[in-house]
Amino acid sequence: MLQRILDYAHFLLEDSVQQGDVVLDGTAGNGHDTLFLSQLVGENGEVLSFDIQEQAILSTEQKINENNVKNITLIQDSHDKLKNYIPEPSTRLGGAIFNLGYLPGSDKSIVTKPDTTLTAIQNTLDLLKPQGLLVLVVYHGHHGGQEEKEALLKYLSKLEQKEFSVLRYGFVNQANNPPFILAIEKK
Amino acid sequence: MLQRILDYAHFLLEDSVQQGDVVLDGTAGNGHDTLFLSQLVGENGEVLSFDIQEQAILSTEQKINENNVKNITLIQDSHDKLKNYIPEPSTRLGGAIFNLGYLPGSDKSIVTKPDTTLTAIQNTLDLLKPQGLLVLVVYHGHHGGQEEKEALLKYLSKLEQKEFSVLRYGFVNQANNPPFILAIEKK
Repeated sequence: MLQRILDYAHFLLEDSVQQGDVVLDGTAGNGHDTLFLSQLVGENGEVLSFDIQEQAILSTEQKINENNVKNITLIQDSHDKLKNYIPEPSTRLGGAIFNLGYLPGSDKSIVTKPDTTLTAIQNTLDLLKPQGLLVLVVYHGHHGGQEEKEALLKYLSKLEQKEFSVLRYGFVNQANNPPFILAIEKK
Repeated sequence: MLQRILDYAHFLLEDSVQQGDVVLDGTAGNGHDTLFLSQLVGENGEVLSFDIQEQAILSTEQKINENNVKNITLIQDSHDKLKNYIPEPSTRLGGAIFNLGYLPGSDKSIVTKPDTTLTAIQNTLDLLKPQGLLVLVVYHGHHGGQEEKEALLKYLSKLEQKEFSVLRYGFVNQANNPPFILAIEKK
């Protein structure tokens, strides 16, 4: 069976993230990906989990407490400020995930913006380990979504192919602008 | 590691094709995919392998003889004539692959054409089993390649999503119009 978008995002991270890695959830949202990453890196790893919205931080905090996990650092700030929060200057990321656009099931007027998104992507790529992967799940069915999608594709299609592979994975015959994946692997 | 295009095409077929299936190679070319399918379906299965070019049929025949396999039927005709060659009217395909555009390493002036391609795709989809997969590897760096690519995407993006899932898989930051995959799964 062809893998659905969210399953494929997790499949890619499972394939690349190692136990003990430091990893990034750039958009904590409801905490789902943060908990998933927490399991992948194990008790010797660490998840840095960002969200600018207090509600997202509270939801994620609740999930962390319910699951009694100790390897997550929650940060209420924009994901483009990543470099201010890494544990040590030499820290490199084993993997990262961003859900771009709006948080499904939430207020569609609160969205990520192209400028901050591109800065956050660049900062994350700088900090990835070789063979590390940044997975972007791109929601674009909101006001401004088309512009963010095009800014992303334009930026990523110009990344140097000797340094990065950029994969696009998505379904082309679905109604209502379903999300798609852009996955960037550092060489 | 992100899977390269040809590896991913084979990964998708491995995941969907069963031993004993009848399957289709719509563009035998150098016989590489035909032999791969022959292994997947085993001695109780059958590969129908089409190519309009005599040279491709001869190359594939040589590979078949070298590998001493008995489950391949070679057909020198256009892949849009599939329905004339299925073993029985009730035969359904477990999977199929087409390399569209030109044969890499060969004469770039001999290419597949949008009209025949779309007929061949429609005929193949009609004959797929439920959960069967048609994998298209789209080469589009030749004269007319852009038009074929756009005709394909236009046609496939309109397939009814209750009946088919259409996945696009490809790298967006590579020079020289690298091939990409369109994979159609029957529901």
